Amino acid sequence: MWEIKSLGYHEEQIIGNGNKFLIGSMNLGVRGTLDEHEKDDLVAVNLPLLYDQVGDSWREPINAFNPLYTVLKVDDEIISLKHKKPIYHEQNLNMLDATMYRKTIFKIGSNEITIESTRFVSSNHDRLIVGNYKVSFKEQADFKIYTGIDYDVWDINGPHLIDIKTNHDLNRLEVSGISYEKSNLIKVVKKVIPNFKVKVQHTLHMDGKILYEILPLKTNSLSYAFDFFAHISIDDKNDLSKEVFDHAVALGFDKLLEDHLTCFHKKWEDSDVKIEGDDEALIALRYSIYHLIILSPDKQKGQSVPARGISGQTYKGAIFWDTEIFMLPFYLNTNLKAAKNIILYRIKGLNGAKLKASYYGYKGAFFAWESQEDGHDACTDYNVTDVFTNRLIRTYFKDKQVHISADIIYALKSYILRTKDDSILYEGGLELLIEVARFYLDYGSYKVLKDRFEILDVMGPDEYHERVHNNAFTNRMVQMVFDYLFEIKDFFTKIKSDYFNKLVHTLGFDAELELIHHMRQKIYIPKPNKDLIIEQFDGYFLLKDIDIKTRLNEKIHPNEYLGGQGLLGDTQNIKQADILTMLYLFRADYSKDIIKANFNYYEPRTEHGSSLSASMYALGACMMENEAYAYPLFMKSASVDLTGDSKQYAGGIYIGGTHPAASGGAYLTAIYGFSGLNIDDEIHLKPALPKSIQKMTYRIKHLGKTYEIMVTKNDYTIKEIL
Amino acid sequence: MWEIKSLGYHEEQIIGNGNKFLIGSMNLGVRGTLDEHEKDDLVAVNLPLLYDQVGDSWREPINAFNPLYTVLKVDDEIISLKHKKPIYHEQNLNMLDATMYRKTIFKIGSNEITIESTRFVSSNHDRLIVGNYKVSFKEQADFKIYTGIDYDVWDINGPHLIDIKTNHDLNRLEVSGISYEKSNLIKVVKKVIPNFKVKVQHTLHMDGKILYEILPLKTNSLSYAFDFFAHISIDDKNDLSKEVFDHAVALGFDKLLEDHLTCFHKKWEDSDVKIEGDDEALIALRYSIYHLIILSPDKQKGQSVPARGISGQTYKGAIFWDTEIFMLPFYLNTNLKAAKNIILYRIKGLNGAKLKASYYGYKGAFFAWESQEDGHDACTDYNVTDVFTNRLIRTYFKDKQVHISADIIYALKSYILRTKDDSILYEGGLELLIEVARFYLDYGSYKVLKDRFEILDVMGPDEYHERVHNNAFTNRMVQMVFDYLFEIKDFFTKIKSDYFNKLVHTLGFDAELELIHHMRQKIYIPKPNKDLIIEQFDGYFLLKDIDIKTRLNEKIHPNEYLGGQGLLGDTQNIKQADILTMLYLFRADYSKDIIKANFNYYEPRTEHGSSLSASMYALGACMMENEAYAYPLFMKSASVDLTGDSKQYAGGIYIGGTHPAASGGAYLTAIYGFSGLNIDDEIHLKPALPKSIQKMTYRIKHLGKTYEIMVTKNDYTIKEIL
Repeated sequence: MWEIKSLGYHEEQIIGNGNKFLIGSMNLGVRGTLDEHEKDDLVAVNLPLLYDQVGDSWREPINAFNPLYTVLKVDDEIISLKHKKPIYHEQNLNMLDATMYRKTIFKIGSNEITIESTRFVSSNHDRLIVGNYKVSFKEQADFKIYTGIDYDVWDINGPHLIDIKTNHDLNRLEVSGISYEKSNLIKVVKKVIPNFKVKVQHTLHMDGKILYEILPLKTNSLSYAFDFFAHISIDDKNDLSKEVFDHAVALGFDKLLEDHLTCFHKKWEDSDVKIEGDDEALIALRYSIYHLIILSPDKQKGQSVPARGISGQTYKGAIFWDTEIFMLPFYLNTNLKAAKNIILYRIKGLNGAKLKASYYGYKGAFFAWESQEDGHDACTDYNVTDVFTNRLIRTYFKDKQVHISADIIYALKSYILRTKDDSILYEGGLELLIEVARFYLDYGSYKVLKDRFEILDVMGPDEYHERVHNNAFTNRMVQMVFDYLFEIKDFFTKIKSDYFNKLVHTLGFDAELELIHHMRQKIYIPKPNKDLIIEQFDGYFLLKDIDIKTRLNEKIHPNEYLGGQGLLGDTQNIKQADILTMLYLFRADYSKDIIKANFNYYEPRTEHGSSLSASMYALGACMMENEAYAYPLFMKSASVDLTGDSKQYAGGIYIGGTHPAASGGAYLTAIYGFSGLNIDDEIHLKPALPKSIQKMTYRIKHLGKTYEIMVTKNDYTIKEIL
Repeated sequence: MWEIKSLGYHEEQIIGNGNKFLIGSMNLGVRGTLDEHEKDDLVAVNLPLLYDQVGDSWREPINAFNPLYTVLKVDDEIISLKHKKPIYHEQNLNMLDATMYRKTIFKIGSNEITIESTRFVSSNHDRLIVGNYKVSFKEQADFKIYTGIDYDVWDINGPHLIDIKTNHDLNRLEVSGISYEKSNLIKVVKKVIPNFKVKVQHTLHMDGKILYEILPLKTNSLSYAFDFFAHISIDDKNDLSKEVFDHAVALGFDKLLEDHLTCFHKKWEDSDVKIEGDDEALIALRYSIYHLIILSPDKQKGQSVPARGISGQTYKGAIFWDTEIFMLPFYLNTNLKAAKNIILYRIKGLNGAKLKASYYGYKGAFFAWESQEDGHDACTDYNVTDVFTNRLIRTYFKDKQVHISADIIYALKSYILRTKDDSILYEGGLELLIEVARFYLDYGSYKVLKDRFEILDVMGPDEYHERVHNNAFTNRMVQMVFDYLFEIKDFFTKIKSDYFNKLVHTLGFDAELELIHHMRQKIYIPKPNKDLIIEQFDGYFLLKDIDIKTRLNEKIHPNEYLGGQGLLGDTQNIKQADILTMLYLFRADYSKDIIKANFNYYEPRTEHGSSLSASMYALGACMMENEAYAYPLFMKSASVDLTGDSKQYAGGIYIGGTHPAASGGAYLTAIYGFSGLNIDDEIHLKPALPKSIQKMTYRIKHLGKTYEIMVTKNDYTIKEIL
């Protein structure tokens, strides 16, 4: 139950498979395209978190030159999926090993030609791709293999690399380029080692590629193979990485694979959730976990995880609240270095957040909605195109989705709760908390007559309703921020440290602390109405209550925008879980009856137009003990990148890629929903396994210890791993 | 200089002439169409302020049956502008007399047929139309005249009158109907009195008309004439008005006209502004004043003036802020009964305003944006159609243009200031003031960190920018409300009356009064920046600063909506005067330099997409002593209904009609701009006459006295009229 396999070759699946068979790490994403694929097939060797801007286009992470390019010629005819229909084709991701394999058989006359290749991104070496390419014949044939570096790369808003230089000898190929905006030097080197009966003949330039011509030593064999090694360096102006690369190559394919597997299997040991009784659920959940593992932001200090992971340039390679709310819990259970980095990333971005707040006239820290390096907000005021006029539509993701700052504090709080690692407070965490609280103090409004503190003019998680007042989710999150500030104040008092008071003083925060002390009692938190339903925002119940399908039947254009002035903007129908997200994040505060009433009200009114939606409803269903509702929503979340059902294009713009927040959401559902994990001072479980699942086993880290948890229908065990 | 005349007959001018040659009073509007015109020609005998709704359509004032219909047949051929091209045609409004006259000559073979008719709406009798119809021939001819009541009337959202009954004898014609929503009984009676050589023969029914056939006594004359009298009654179930009508008719055409003129000339005496040196300006301004006179809301207690006056059903016949801000100053100078009614109208609507506030979750009084009877808000959430999708666009006129309540207090304050008539305070004025102040206390927000009271999420006069924060105009108006409340409190203290305190107590307002006392010091009023420019609202300066013409060149459809998500919504270009309106209303607070800086900044960025715009800029130009800028803006305002340049249709919906706010604005410009009238404890003048104007003479009422003011380039006189 570790293999994701696709059989047969269908051109329309190339893009989806690029995501589905993705390998890599937080330093390097290698899309699951094939050896012979090129620019048009959306090949990408992506450098996550390394951003570049060309002209006025969107900033996005750079795609490096592609060192995977390989193509076969038999009797001077190109034998490739791009030119020929195969008689057999499979593509295969081994999730346990994090390796990709392909096998393709072509029939030429009476001969059958089989191409096999394997690749992996080393878990032990920095940005090292290792592979093997093999060709076999039924009958002897005359062939050549071309393999090298394709430097005519795919970009959404490129080209990002200019001043391209190539360098080669029979020992290595090298292509370097300079990034447009910040002049980063990107260098890709590749080395080919004949493995079985081939020789590297010479080098040639062709169509934006630098290639070796590989020939058989003699054509009397039916099988030929070579290994290849590629390395991508960033800003290595003095070629310091050359030695490292040569050393790695010297270890050879087998040793590198062995080391990689040792390392990667260890990650699985910490991360796997074994499901018994439902193989479909097992494979989907493992696939989600596979993604969360390869995305672990533990390669460099202060890394975080972009909303489309390492699958390319979509969503500008930026980091959204997805990371803190949907992914962090996985890392808190499995990889604390990654978890800490997620917090450190935001601490690094504090200055950017202060600048953003200041731009809008507020004090404190207003974090980027689409965060790139240094907290730079890549989000624009125009994120959608009007299909009727082809004009940009003013959207409010950037300036009104103020909950982002509180989401980060929620993450900080969770991290400290689970690790007791208060060092983060001294490393900028406390300043982060203070600046976020300060921002909300300034953003919010005290309503004199109602004697309460309100948060006006925001956008909640449901992005179809713009500029609403008192979004319940946002208000509850702000209350959490204010309360947590005083919790932390108490903590420092208790340990007799004056760090808190000193920092408050340094930041000129004394008077504001006092004001927050007053206001936090007065934050308006919408209460459940007589039917136990919590109004999503002021006036939501006054909106048209039209059946969502009926409304969507009024669509004139399949891709028209549904939010704002669109079809759903003035109805009670919402894009994604909003109240339900609040109920999940603050689940201790709400009764089962409230959760049930709100699930039943909001779910039929939800379009699930975001991959973040299904898991929150799945968790809600678990909390109301209705696993039958939860299961399909869980499966939807877990398999979004397996089925490839998500949108790939919107108005001509590629928006595909993987959905790690959905992966995280599937994990959340399994752990916090199905097994009912709940951690306060102790570890609690309240199993609510769906009918088909008999047993679930997983590990979590908590307060420096590791536990193995086993859950069955009516029972559970918690065992410390020593 | 009292005549508005049009020569020649052009079909495309029928609608415009309906407005241009309007006669009537606040009880009855008679559009300036001609005797032979019908439904398709937008004939209307409009009953202002009497609203009706059919199904889900917009509520609008009722059009009564048309008693003006008359057509001529010569040798069995219809002789009418609808069937024949005339050789001569003139239509004529005598503004001094408030009479409409038409003369049309047709040529049939060698014969020439001249039709003349005169009509007026009696100033002395309630809803009485009086007319005379005359036909003359060059050669004797055989003819018939049909005259009667056309009950197939034009409606925008009708038909409003059902259960139509006709009744007739040779003495009178009668048509009655019942309104759809509230079952008002509308009855139109008509009487014809032969004047010269004709006889009323018999009655016939034809195409939704009930008609007399009028024949020559003998055909040996070249001239024939009859007088007609028509009366419209509302809910006169027992025919009480019959006697009144018969008495009026008995007086006859000449006497009725004489009485009417006496009365109407008196109005002119109080209202005229004589301009010497510029006849074009004189006639345009007089035309504006003519409209303001016929619209005087002094026919019934608590009347006010709809935004399209009495010209028909457009704008739902509703009352906007136009009345308080653009028209009231005219009545304060000329007709105090009308002025008081404008205030009383809103007092009557206080309950409706409280219901509206409550609907949106606020206390106090939030007045209707489009006010019908009892303060009912006829405005919908969807006022515009998207030309690209044919869907309604969510607009914010109704729920965010909160300045309306303050506009009413500005009017109340002006009324008391100019009359010292504090009786209005006891008649509901004080309660109005308290409830409006209460509304703003609840609507506004105290910003804790900035320590100021802000007004968030509003729409200012510039309706293209929706849901803005701290619109300078709105904030300043709210400050005025709060301040005035305490001025009035002091007033009652001074006169040793406990009426204020008692009412405060009755309304449970004690604590709120205290809160307002605190907040009024803290209201945030945006200050001029280093270039002396006042930002229209928070973030306005961050908007795109694109030349307005360049931007409008991007139009795809001539009628596309420019506000909100439209082409101007995200630019610094505005629909109409906003900051300039504030500068005018609070002109004592601002220096000439500030006015100049803001005029120069905002005027080039203004589309003048509202007829309210030009006059505010004209006044601004006067205040900065640039009469050359002011003059064309003044002329634009004064002649909007003369040129008929305003839009008549929008997306198939008739939106034409007269623009009394522009008339009021023209008057304001003449009096407060050109002559520089300024009234505090005394009357001040600061002449700024445009180059072409040598002298201006007008009367004003102030504190119970009447003054005649004469202004020349460098001098002025103020003379009390005893």
